Amino acid sequence: MPQRETSTAIDLDFSKGNGLVSAIAQDAGSKEVLMCAFMNKEAFEATLATGYAHYYSRSRKSLWKKGETSGHLQQVREIRVDCDQDCVLLLVEQTGAACHTGRHSCFYRRVRNPESLEYVED
Amino acid sequence: MPQRETSTAIDLDFSKGNGLVSAIAQDAGSKEVLMCAFMNKEAFEATLATGYAHYYSRSRKSLWKKGETSGHLQQVREIRVDCDQDCVLLLVEQTGAACHTGRHSCFYRRVRNPESLEYVED
Repeated sequence: MPQRETSTAIDLDFSKGNGLVSAIAQDAGSKEVLMCAFMNKEAFEATLATGYAHYYSRSRKSLWKKGETSGHLQQVREIRVDCDQDCVLLLVEQTGAACHTGRHSCFYRRVRNPESLEYVED
Repeated sequence: MPQRETSTAIDLDFSKGNGLVSAIAQDAGSKEVLMCAFMNKEAFEATLATGYAHYYSRSRKSLWKKGETSGHLQQVREIRVDCDQDCVLLLVEQTGAACHTGRHSCFYRRVRNPESLEYVED
């Protein structure tokens, strides 16, 4: 098995994602998945150093601290890495809403049938 | 707000990810996050059509049905989309192990300190 899968060294694989890894934020209490974004090396290191989630915005091409302007910070309780270290899972305490629409989670719609979505009760 | 965020039409945004969206599989019962991968349009449509998770492998550059060789299928109970429709969340019933290492989840290690990982009890 590749060393990355068995190692206890942090060795994130940024190569497959053009310098980025996937980053999932999950509510540490309810286990609800709140959002999915990306991190570059700088965002990961800033998250480790501060204890607050930082991501990399593909559209703005820049680092952002989640909640920096809205106040909707994510305090990180635990960080997990997946087998091949190209994804991190953050267990967070979310202040306010994770979604910029004001909802607790970004996943507020589900597929109802192959053509349409329906809103999910919060 | 952009139409994609309020619409009840499925309109996945494959543009930011070079034809891919992120895809998270979460255990429908325990709410454990099992894995994170990617889908192209074909993988999403195959998932909708069959009720079993299909992904796109960036390394092999091909569609794969999860569990096709291992038998570790993911039966999809619900599909959610995020606000800007560049990520889908699958609530699944996992047969066997989600991770190719034989573990239920790919997230079997957590960051212990800024330099190292530790294995998590399953």
